[in-house]
Amino acid sequence: MPKPRVRRMPREVRERQMIDAAVRVFARCGYSAASMDEIAELAGASKPLIYLYLHSKEDLFGTCIRREAAALLGAVRSAVEPHAPADRRLWDGLRAFFAHTAAHPEGWAVLSCRARTHGEPFDRVVAELREEIVEVVVRLIEEAAEDAVGGAAAGRAPLNGREVTGLAHALVGAAESLAGWANGPAGAVPSAKETAETLMNVAWVGLENLVSGRRWEAAASKAGVVSSG
Amino acid sequence: MPKPRVRRMPREVRERQMIDAAVRVFARCGYSAASMDEIAELAGASKPLIYLYLHSKEDLFGTCIRREAAALLGAVRSAVEPHAPADRRLWDGLRAFFAHTAAHPEGWAVLSCRARTHGEPFDRVVAELREEIVEVVVRLIEEAAEDAVGGAAAGRAPLNGREVTGLAHALVGAAESLAGWANGPAGAVPSAKETAETLMNVAWVGLENLVSGRRWEAAASKAGVVSSG
Repeated sequence: MPKPRVRRMPREVRERQMIDAAVRVFARCGYSAASMDEIAELAGASKPLIYLYLHSKEDLFGTCIRREAAALLGAVRSAVEPHAPADRRLWDGLRAFFAHTAAHPEGWAVLSCRARTHGEPFDRVVAELREEIVEVVVRLIEEAAEDAVGGAAAGRAPLNGREVTGLAHALVGAAESLAGWANGPAGAVPSAKETAETLMNVAWVGLENLVSGRRWEAAASKAGVVSSG
Repeated sequence: MPKPRVRRMPREVRERQMIDAAVRVFARCGYSAASMDEIAELAGASKPLIYLYLHSKEDLFGTCIRREAAALLGAVRSAVEPHAPADRRLWDGLRAFFAHTAAHPEGWAVLSCRARTHGEPFDRVVAELREEIVEVVVRLIEEAAEDAVGGAAAGRAPLNGREVTGLAHALVGAAESLAGWANGPAGAVPSAKETAETLMNVAWVGLENLVSGRRWEAAASKAGVVSSG
């Protein structure tokens, strides 16, 4: 019977350790200041092995961004039940978004700030991730509007396409900003559920009013909200 | 009578031209890729004169950020009437914000993306600008809540401090995101007024509901909005 060979660590495990270490260093230092020596040390690997597996600092950074983007999108997608009502889907998606960014602050730092550090090619990866999320939110808003039209009284002012896209951008920006706040240094940090509730309270209630034709009117100075329904 | 001296361009005019050129180049290329040669050429000045007046690429970048931040804050502040009702102040502030970022897309690019390019010292300048804006919005929300409590029926659920801060972060993030969208490459771009209306419709109406105790409830699956007032 042959002796068992000394098994080396499989390549994918090694690579994962390297990418884990790189995300941590990029999150802390940004792209330019991050050193491959530090990444190698943190990964417990030699620098030549990192270059062999992951090619260059630039490639490594791109790999980090794509992995973190896929993990975030995956977490949000798997939390959302496709046939649930639109508000429930938004709520579940927001909670998953805030839970994931809270659990992976370094991944979120790389996606939200550090990816803009480097320039064009990575800007594009992050912009595409963002565009994908905005598209999902656009569809949610449209479906919410349809639910509302189907389920209630007449007199609706339909949302136009550009307004829906604007709303989606507003919501995504609000979520990004809240994730940064929740992960920030400021004392008592809210939970993912609290953060999702804060956003849901403003966004969804405002959205339902919009769909039902209740709008803030610039003309009505004091009272602000005027029902046009 | 002495002959009039040939007047050279005053230093502050020269410096302004240099900073204008630098903002343009930093907005297009980011900090690392921006070249002092290009800035000098665009400013119609010699590189040694730029170094004499503005010291280093790093100092020049810092000067750009501080100037653009001050211009943006100034535009928003001067648009807001201190004694107007809270919703009118928010509306005027938002319109000024979107008008200024639309009129100065390069300044906004430097503040919103490119400032994160470089690392710690500039991150801090931008973070402070943002913190200042969040504080203004926190006060607006608090005053709006007081207006609502003063002007209407009982049964209010008061907002807690962390929730108000969360709302302010959400609103600021939404505004940043909308400014990026409005300045983006995507075809038919909305006007500053439209963008402000989009945000005001969701944020203010949602906010008024919140103040009056009308909240989205995770438990109420289909209908979503439940009045607790």
